[in-house]
Amino acid sequence: MNIFPLIAIGTSTTNLKGEILDVRYQLIRSKSGLTSCSTNPSPLYDKDSSYEMLLELYDTLKDLDDSQIEEHIRNQETTQEKINLNEGSTHSERIKFVIHKIEKDDAVNDVKDAYLKLHCISQRLTEPNSINLEGIFNALPNVAWTNHGPMDPADVEVLREDYDYLFIRSLDKFPCLTDYVIPSGVRIADASRVRLGAYLSEGTTVMHEGFVNFNAGTLGPAMIEGRISAGVVVGKNSDLGGGCSTMGTLSGGNDVKISVGEDCLLGANSGLGIPLGDRCIVEAGLYLTGGSKVEVLDQSSNLIVTVRASELSLKPDLLFIRNSLSGTIQCKPNKKSVVLNDQLHSND
Amino acid sequence: MNIFPLIAIGTSTTNLKGEILDVRYQLIRSKSGLTSCSTNPSPLYDKDSSYEMLLELYDTLKDLDDSQIEEHIRNQETTQEKINLNEGSTHSERIKFVIHKIEKDDAVNDVKDAYLKLHCISQRLTEPNSINLEGIFNALPNVAWTNHGPMDPADVEVLREDYDYLFIRSLDKFPCLTDYVIPSGVRIADASRVRLGAYLSEGTTVMHEGFVNFNAGTLGPAMIEGRISAGVVVGKNSDLGGGCSTMGTLSGGNDVKISVGEDCLLGANSGLGIPLGDRCIVEAGLYLTGGSKVEVLDQSSNLIVTVRASELSLKPDLLFIRNSLSGTIQCKPNKKSVVLNDQLHSND
Amino acid sequence: MNIFPLIAIGTSTTNLKGEILDVRYQLIRSKSGLTSCSTNPSPLYDKDSSYEMLLELYDTLKDLDDSQIEEHIRNQETTQEKINLNEGSTHSERIKFVIHKIEKDDAVNDVKDAYLKLHCISQRLTEPNSINLEGIFNALPNVAWTNHGPMDPADVEVLREDYDYLFIRSLDKFPCLTDYVIPSGVRIADASRVRLGAYLSEGTTVMHEGFVNFNAGTLGPAMIEGRISAGVVVGKNSDLGGGCSTMGTLSGGNDVKISVGEDCLLGANSGLGIPLGDRCIVEAGLYLTGGSKVEVLDQSSNLIVTVRASELSLKPDLLFIRNSLSGTIQCKPNKKSVVLNDQLHSND
Repeated sequence: MNIFPLIAIGTSTTNLKGEILDVRYQLIRSKSGLTSCSTNPSPLYDKDSSYEMLLELYDTLKDLDDSQIEEHIRNQETTQEKINLNEGSTHSERIKFVIHKIEKDDAVNDVKDAYLKLHCISQRLTEPNSINLEGIFNALPNVAWTNHGPMDPADVEVLREDYDYLFIRSLDKFPCLTDYVIPSGVRIADASRVRLGAYLSEGTTVMHEGFVNFNAGTLGPAMIEGRISAGVVVGKNSDLGGGCSTMGTLSGGNDVKISVGEDCLLGANSGLGIPLGDRCIVEAGLYLTGGSKVEVLDQSSNLIVTVRASELSLKPDLLFIRNSLSGTIQCKPNKKSVVLNDQLHSND
Repeated sequence: MNIFPLIAIGTSTTNLKGEILDVRYQLIRSKSGLTSCSTNPSPLYDKDSSYEMLLELYDTLKDLDDSQIEEHIRNQETTQEKINLNEGSTHSERIKFVIHKIEKDDAVNDVKDAYLKLHCISQRLTEPNSINLEGIFNALPNVAWTNHGPMDPADVEVLREDYDYLFIRSLDKFPCLTDYVIPSGVRIADASRVRLGAYLSEGTTVMHEGFVNFNAGTLGPAMIEGRISAGVVVGKNSDLGGGCSTMGTLSGGNDVKISVGEDCLLGANSGLGIPLGDRCIVEAGLYLTGGSKVEVLDQSSNLIVTVRASELSLKPDLLFIRNSLSGTIQCKPNKKSVVLNDQLHSND
Repeated sequence: MNIFPLIAIGTSTTNLKGEILDVRYQLIRSKSGLTSCSTNPSPLYDKDSSYEMLLELYDTLKDLDDSQIEEHIRNQETTQEKINLNEGSTHSERIKFVIHKIEKDDAVNDVKDAYLKLHCISQRLTEPNSINLEGIFNALPNVAWTNHGPMDPADVEVLREDYDYLFIRSLDKFPCLTDYVIPSGVRIADASRVRLGAYLSEGTTVMHEGFVNFNAGTLGPAMIEGRISAGVVVGKNSDLGGGCSTMGTLSGGNDVKISVGEDCLLGANSGLGIPLGDRCIVEAGLYLTGGSKVEVLDQSSNLIVTVRASELSLKPDLLFIRNSLSGTIQCKPNKKSVVLNDQLHSND
């Protein structure tokens, strides 16, 4: 489903020069009807505002500068309002109002584009690999994510003086998912391990050793104790064991997009370099790269053929092991089914 | 040793509906004499209060509602007191007084039960696998662990307005150990990696890549750079190398409870699927599952027998390797002894 | 280049007994001319102060007690000054002025020595393995690194009362790098994974699964998704894949110092137990220990010789794999070159 054009309203944090570091979008409205609303902090719109109403607001504000926008907001105000315009150095004093439109799915051009597309994925408005994220690394500034909010790394020593104690949680272009979006029905044991732009479905648990990059995630309930690289999606009811690896396309990987099917198990400390079919198991400790030669066995363990692992891409019901006596990587029909522990996966 | 019945006093954080999210127990007193006391924040008891004194208090308060308990506390007050009853939205304003009794070791019934049992393990009053934790996942609500205290995920956007900057550290049923208990003689490089309910003995260091789940831990000094799954215990003077895995019984594992003996070494990126005896080594990078077939060799590397790894459970003085030429998993007598680096393990 | 003697000025946090827990050095000045300055918080010196000027100040202050130093600072003050002397319990009230000299490169004697040497490495004044860090574990106290600053673990329950909400980020002798130093041109996705004393060159990205110990780091641009153990250095343009391990000399390792050459790739979940030459690749999932026997093959995959991996230390242009059919560790000429993704590595 095409989510563009869309308009979104939010607030950004600025550095001491007034440049935008991040954007928190509170309301996203697509012309096609998709919507997402986390809070309702502004007199300018409410959660029922239609795309057309936001378009009108956008057209009113788009050519105004910050102080004119501020005046416009003040004129609308019926309640006490928290939005300020760089009047001090605390986090809430470095906040700016943002309204942003993306007309069509072009490459990412600036911070506003980048955060809006990342929000759309994490708000589950669109799945990983469905929108154009080209240029996102260049569009995002490197930010010091501190306990007192996002800061320009160059500002940290100046702003440190304003606080009793300041520390940096992360020094990175991408923020944590939960700094911006709290997906329903999800557990994330260590919030620093999931980036904004991750897509986590209801019933997903990301344990302490789990990791989910942007433009990646789970399409249904899942237990994630391993690493989901950028571009990788995991089917429903699959289990990624502790410390397991999925090859990404950003670094190290090749051009093949890795994925995990439904009802799969990647064992602890295993690794995956092919798109895996449904109901497959990769044994704990086995790293299956696309180029690995694999003996394919039948139910009675007779050798049928030897192939590269990449030729087994997306084939269902396979069990991959390394024979512990011969050291050979082998593939057999998978007779066990993976069942997620229901109690573990109830995330109420 | 049976720790029940026991009574404990503490404080809980509530959500905006007044429901309990967590409990911090300050004093735990068992009828059998075991006790633990972290601070002394109340006029109702002191650290020398006996089980019988707490029982009397419990009987006085158990049928009162929150405001009656508050009145009772106020009547006792001789000092200025920090305990409030949901009079505002900051963390200290969302705190409630808790006194809780567990008569016998039944399944976990509610948040108070769950936190009391987890405290007992982390306060080292009872070892992992010694008490009944059935039902704990259902009893624990999912909580947003923020820099401003525990919050109901549904309350986060409302409470965000009260702070200059709010972020979520974890979105999970279980909290970090060090949010509630600081075990003596222990180092934990990344506090987010050890859950409340972990049992860490004096002289234990958990490095950044280490992880310890609830109902799991170390029975003596240990260097932990790998993952201790729920139910797994590690004997004294053992070393779990970076990224090593121990199979848990909660997910993925089978019914066999995995453990590590004394003076053992699990190499970096190795894995363990059997209960390991004393003075054993699993080579770096080798994942030993219970079903792995293993060649057992004598001192002169002659093959004695080939067995499943599970048959070597709890046998001492073994070295497990994968022969780098034949690819075969082999087991030899272990002639090296593992010596922990004393300097590294001094945790004063 | 010898950086000693050197003098440095900073501030320390104290525990409730007035003992030093940590030191943040703002200005470091070596007699040989090397210097580093993060901020300029004192009336006693400015960023242009020479080694000789600091030496004079050091000689003036070295025999004074804390209150005399305070008086001296007050006499110099022309501006409002933030430095206090233990007049309360918040972080800024537990801060002390520090001036410290290290005459020559002896073993680490106390907290001031330890933090100054760690700062020197992280400020890139001197490379890993170039200065004497003996005794550092004994010199460093175990500290509770909280959201309200460093605290003595014994003080936490007392200080907790002063804050709306207090949590412990780490309970360790070593702090996070970014609590003290923000290296230019660097990204660190999870700040808790890099210790003070890490040396990170411009263009280095440490991803969430990356880790860098003290006295270790990168000598040029690098992508670090694996673990750099104490004493290990990584050459420029190398890529450490997710979850890969480098053996350290502190624990588990032997006496050989592990290193990674330039333009190398350690695959995801791989491991390294030898010093690796330039343009080498270790395949994903392969743990290469020094004692592993390795078949050395030529371009046409003919066996040349079988050697222990340690004999291949520092040799360039090698590809290490485990043959997926025979299970044998093999080494071939490496024909692929590793190219870091430029976009990923732009850390502006």
